[in-house]
Amino acid sequence: MEKRKVFESAVRICHDMQDRITTALEELEMNNASSGRASIFKEDLWDHGDTTSTILTGGGGRSRAIENGRIFEKGGVNVSDVSGRFSEEMARAQPGESSRFRATGISLVLHPKNPHAPTVHANFRVIKRITEQGDIDRMWFGGGADLTPHLFYEEDARHFHKAWSDLCLRHREIADYGKMKQDCDAYFFLPHRAEARGIGGIFYDYQEENADQWLAFMKEAGEAFLESYVPIIKRRSDMPFTEAEREFQLYRRGRYVEFNLIHDRGTLFGLRTGGRIESILMSLPSPVHWRYNYHPENDLSLPEALRRQIAELYSALKEPRNWIP
Amino acid sequence: MEKRKVFESAVRICHDMQDRITTALEELEMNNASSGRASIFKEDLWDHGDTTSTILTGGGGRSRAIENGRIFEKGGVNVSDVSGRFSEEMARAQPGESSRFRATGISLVLHPKNPHAPTVHANFRVIKRITEQGDIDRMWFGGGADLTPHLFYEEDARHFHKAWSDLCLRHREIADYGKMKQDCDAYFFLPHRAEARGIGGIFYDYQEENADQWLAFMKEAGEAFLESYVPIIKRRSDMPFTEAEREFQLYRRGRYVEFNLIHDRGTLFGLRTGGRIESILMSLPSPVHWRYNYHPENDLSLPEALRRQIAELYSALKEPRNWIP
Repeated sequence: MEKRKVFESAVRICHDMQDRITTALEELEMNNASSGRASIFKEDLWDHGDTTSTILTGGGGRSRAIENGRIFEKGGVNVSDVSGRFSEEMARAQPGESSRFRATGISLVLHPKNPHAPTVHANFRVIKRITEQGDIDRMWFGGGADLTPHLFYEEDARHFHKAWSDLCLRHREIADYGKMKQDCDAYFFLPHRAEARGIGGIFYDYQEENADQWLAFMKEAGEAFLESYVPIIKRRSDMPFTEAEREFQLYRRGRYVEFNLIHDRGTLFGLRTGGRIESILMSLPSPVHWRYNYHPENDLSLPEALRRQIAELYSALKEPRNWIP
Repeated sequence: MEKRKVFESAVRICHDMQDRITTALEELEMNNASSGRASIFKEDLWDHGDTTSTILTGGGGRSRAIENGRIFEKGGVNVSDVSGRFSEEMARAQPGESSRFRATGISLVLHPKNPHAPTVHANFRVIKRITEQGDIDRMWFGGGADLTPHLFYEEDARHFHKAWSDLCLRHREIADYGKMKQDCDAYFFLPHRAEARGIGGIFYDYQEENADQWLAFMKEAGEAFLESYVPIIKRRSDMPFTEAEREFQLYRRGRYVEFNLIHDRGTLFGLRTGGRIESILMSLPSPVHWRYNYHPENDLSLPEALRRQIAELYSALKEPRNWIP
């Protein structure tokens, strides 16, 4: 397919994926037995003109955020399609030469309230650089999905990886699960804590060859996401939890904030382009607790069952593991 | 005075300042009428060998942290004296050529529990670059102090600035309050929010000339800090507050985290040198709430008195103001 058409298809795929995912997550909210009122996503349409960006010159996005739900304490499923002109620094940091660009993508982060239920993130995007004459200079796909458990369940980690590995198998000419899993482990890593953000998933970037196939991969990523996450949410979101378990979750959320604000390329790209700040930072959880020099793995005041789950989590965060036998 | 002696004096001054300040703050904790148990600072001595740093080769620090006090919900007063060898990137980013360095400083951040009481930060430091022969190549002073109110009181902002401007007046040959106040406004600014972190204070960096005088300035900075902050804490920490006021404070704390993790040079310097992570991130408040697309200044559900204070705060954050007539 012509590159231009591939890009336009990607824009549609992102919007369809957003519809499909927000509908499915709202159904979960409605059918959940937890107390409290089910939440629905709140939609905000925004335009580059609503930002103070000196980089963006066109386009905008459709942000859908959820807060204080029965299942989801905070989260968002956002799509955007923006165009603009890179700063010199940004132009150097990306493949290609042209300074005009257009980027489209879907980005989601969901922070469940129940500490037994893991936080999830997924992102699929296409970026093209455009010559002054309006031709496509370079175009590449990137994306991925990763899971961040608080209380640790090995079966959840295996289930999540299996869904994404199945997607890769269906696209085996282009998608090497083993490599994408390794790249995910390398990317979602906090050097200052010497630990992973979570138990990984898949990650890929700068995929320029085989645009048609990457488009097909992206088209199926929405279903793969629901397969990877919904069964986990269904079995965890109604589990009873203690105050100590909740407190551990709020403490772990601090690491999520640290990763996103210090390291995450997508967040930094958003900040540098001057994108819509509320959409960029919808990824941050709430509430979040930081504790000075706290080492939950050595906290003997915690109940033994919780300590065992914490030890298993830290073991998984300290050393990447193969989740698919 | 010989440069080498100036540096050694600075090390002692930092330690004395830490003693004086933690003692004074503990007295405040003991004498506060709020419910709950008074907290004292917990001391941790650390050594460069306790870190995984590839930059640091000597020295360490004395960290003192406070948590869940009657006044202070979270905070720390840390000193460090470390030596090492800059990476090429860090070497380029600082004045001078030599790659060996030694740095000493005191850094404090205090997050009171009461939303009427402002968060405060201060930092005073000396850095020297050392030739392979062990001579001092370049040496400079830096530092400052700034105040971050939640509920806004103009008299507090004026009082804080007055104390620091008085210190500058006593050192008028080297310290230009007007310039240092402007530099502070420029430094503690969140471009992605288009607002200041707080109501400023003073900020200076790369002061190489007049080392003896900057040392004398540093020596008096501890008393200036107590003069600038203790009277404010005394009049605010026992004030009753509502849940809505507390919620506003937790929301505003999110901006503090954003500034420190995205922009703060000291935090990024600490992360890059691989310093002790718990001392570097002791500056983060807790608990912290993020809310999607929340604009408290337009929240008509808030009581009118609170809305008035919020409007005054935002007016001060949006446009730097002269606090000294």
